[in-house]
Amino acid sequence: MIGDLLIPSDRKIIMLIMDGLGGLRNDAFPQTALEAASTPNLDRLAANGACGRSLPIAPGITPGSGPAHFALFGYDPLAPENDAGRGATEVTGVGFELKKEDVAIRGNFATINSEGVLTDRRAGRIPHQEGVRICEKLSDNIREIDGIEIIIMPVREYRFGLVLRGDNLNPAVEETDPQVVDMKPLPPRAMNKDAEFTAGIISKFIQRCNEVLSDEEKANTVLMRGISSKPDIQPFKDKFNLDAAAVAFYPLYRGVAGFCGMKLIDTGGYSPGEAFETVRSGYREGFNFFFIHIKKTDSHGEDGNLEKKKEVIEDVDSNLPAILDLKPDVIMVTGDHSTPCALKSHSWHPVPFLIHSDRCGRDRSRAFSEIECDRGSLGVFPAMTIMPRALANAGMLKKFGA
Amino acid sequence: MIGDLLIPSDRKIIMLIMDGLGGLRNDAFPQTALEAASTPNLDRLAANGACGRSLPIAPGITPGSGPAHFALFGYDPLAPENDAGRGATEVTGVGFELKKEDVAIRGNFATINSEGVLTDRRAGRIPHQEGVRICEKLSDNIREIDGIEIIIMPVREYRFGLVLRGDNLNPAVEETDPQVVDMKPLPPRAMNKDAEFTAGIISKFIQRCNEVLSDEEKANTVLMRGISSKPDIQPFKDKFNLDAAAVAFYPLYRGVAGFCGMKLIDTGGYSPGEAFETVRSGYREGFNFFFIHIKKTDSHGEDGNLEKKKEVIEDVDSNLPAILDLKPDVIMVTGDHSTPCALKSHSWHPVPFLIHSDRCGRDRSRAFSEIECDRGSLGVFPAMTIMPRALANAGMLKKFGA
Repeated sequence: MIGDLLIPSDRKIIMLIMDGLGGLRNDAFPQTALEAASTPNLDRLAANGACGRSLPIAPGITPGSGPAHFALFGYDPLAPENDAGRGATEVTGVGFELKKEDVAIRGNFATINSEGVLTDRRAGRIPHQEGVRICEKLSDNIREIDGIEIIIMPVREYRFGLVLRGDNLNPAVEETDPQVVDMKPLPPRAMNKDAEFTAGIISKFIQRCNEVLSDEEKANTVLMRGISSKPDIQPFKDKFNLDAAAVAFYPLYRGVAGFCGMKLIDTGGYSPGEAFETVRSGYREGFNFFFIHIKKTDSHGEDGNLEKKKEVIEDVDSNLPAILDLKPDVIMVTGDHSTPCALKSHSWHPVPFLIHSDRCGRDRSRAFSEIECDRGSLGVFPAMTIMPRALANAGMLKKFGA
Repeated sequence: MIGDLLIPSDRKIIMLIMDGLGGLRNDAFPQTALEAASTPNLDRLAANGACGRSLPIAPGITPGSGPAHFALFGYDPLAPENDAGRGATEVTGVGFELKKEDVAIRGNFATINSEGVLTDRRAGRIPHQEGVRICEKLSDNIREIDGIEIIIMPVREYRFGLVLRGDNLNPAVEETDPQVVDMKPLPPRAMNKDAEFTAGIISKFIQRCNEVLSDEEKANTVLMRGISSKPDIQPFKDKFNLDAAAVAFYPLYRGVAGFCGMKLIDTGGYSPGEAFETVRSGYREGFNFFFIHIKKTDSHGEDGNLEKKKEVIEDVDSNLPAILDLKPDVIMVTGDHSTPCALKSHSWHPVPFLIHSDRCGRDRSRAFSEIECDRGSLGVFPAMTIMPRALANAGMLKKFGA
């Protein structure tokens, strides 16, 4: 329906995502990080805007970051075609242009002992430069297996991406990471007959890696995970008529944005200041939608570190004028899901959401926090409906029916 | 599901719709019309009732009046079978009983110059009596074209209804109104082969009108719009076991109510007092559901005239005792959509909603306004769910399952 209602416009929309933003209160945590943080800029947006709570997937469902971001971008996170594999997501996230026929794999460098038993699933968390060196070593030695092109790329630290390119590939192959140490990696098993050729290629690839890496102390084997191909997703531009820029540092978020056809913009680093500066520098370059991803709120939530999570939120807030000065027509601030310090993990709790535009209307929310968003006019709503709200606030949707 | 749960009852339900009721606050409009209005009767209903915000179609979607009313009546506004064309809606609204095979058209009287170029799309907004006279003139002169019966009826001022009745008709014909002046009207183009006969009839009809109206100063041609046929809609009585009366003055709202099989009752005029008096006079006549439509809240919202919109709401409130005295078992008050004075147009913002019955329960809403409805117990909910709520409050729904 939205596609039929779109109106061309030069208005600009900013979607600012603080990963894992939402929290919860209990005896141990009488305040959430967002409540504890001093956020005068976000509070002013909330007080002058409209607030509510965004439900990432469905009630009670704790989302992974992939489906949560698909929902934020207006795609049904439960639709099979939007179920992007981790391999495809990560290689897209580091800027690789997957073709439809490729198989993409997320690799871990790992350590095995002389019996081939796994002793470290992350190769002692080797630093990023080591990962880059080992990827180059593998690339120099393994370029092709049985007519299939082998493309290896560093992702971050002990993680790398592998793309198989050629005919008759099929991603229905089981992962080789046993998820625990003290056992041998699993064989790459084909889930159906059509994937047997691909399973064979992966098996030979592992063997070749073991040979090439036999002189390495830590990264002497590889684990194959998230074996997948490029999802067939309607481009964001077709869906919403928006030229979108993704300002995100981490591969997964860049990957999801890349699947949707957003332009991936390099940030200098992961800090809010760097992200906002990147938006400023691209603001006049023909984009009218900016997705900004801030990661560390989630990381500190996972650690249960309320003080640190609070500091990241305060860092976002104090740097916010850099993008508010651009006077975007619509700005939305929310998270992809909650990561309460009280739970030290992703959770299903609805996420504080604010939207600010000249058409949003003001409601009873006086600040940006979980309980103030509960006072808002938007209620608890599916994250998938955020994009239509953004378009409406930007004046980009015409009336439905006479 | 609802159909299986219905319990026969002599209880009575009133649905009072103030068109475009919802508003929004911003710097220029620190209060909405509903907030600014003095509404002691509505406030008492809200304080003793249950409140929330009704979402007409979907988040971010600005509804036209047609789909918005279908949703209020419990029909899925997105279902293709409920997508009623404007022609069918208007002729139904003036009381014409469309047959399934008819093609209905909304006509405008318009002005062309000697070259056939459009100079006024509304024939100088001729008064209603002029429209009636010209309709009679056309009816006297054009009764049949190529075996198709031609039925012409006045609607309001420069607008009339045209019904084609006969075999092999098909409404897939493009409108002839170019939407701007200084060009010739468009030809009635068939959208597919099956509609070519109908397009030919419409073309000949326009030609005949031009001949018959050649001596008219203003209304010397016709524009054909909303070419459509009767939607195939489950009657309200079948759906909800309610004998419904529609107390509405304007054709579109009468039309939608007519499609649902509601009995259209004539009001003396468009004022709230006249509408409520009409309900009073029909209250014992075997109806147990009354749809009351008040138009002018929307009109003044479209004009951005908060003072006038407020006055209409106050007029509704001060006349409300006329229907409250009837002691309806359930009364609901809401709008079909928002028309904020701040936006001067229909909008997507959820609409204040109240329901009052002896089973509704009281919540934290203390008055009838946008922000008080945000405090209510009903949350933000699809307008399509209003009818089940009404039936439940009337004790007309039995338990689902054992």
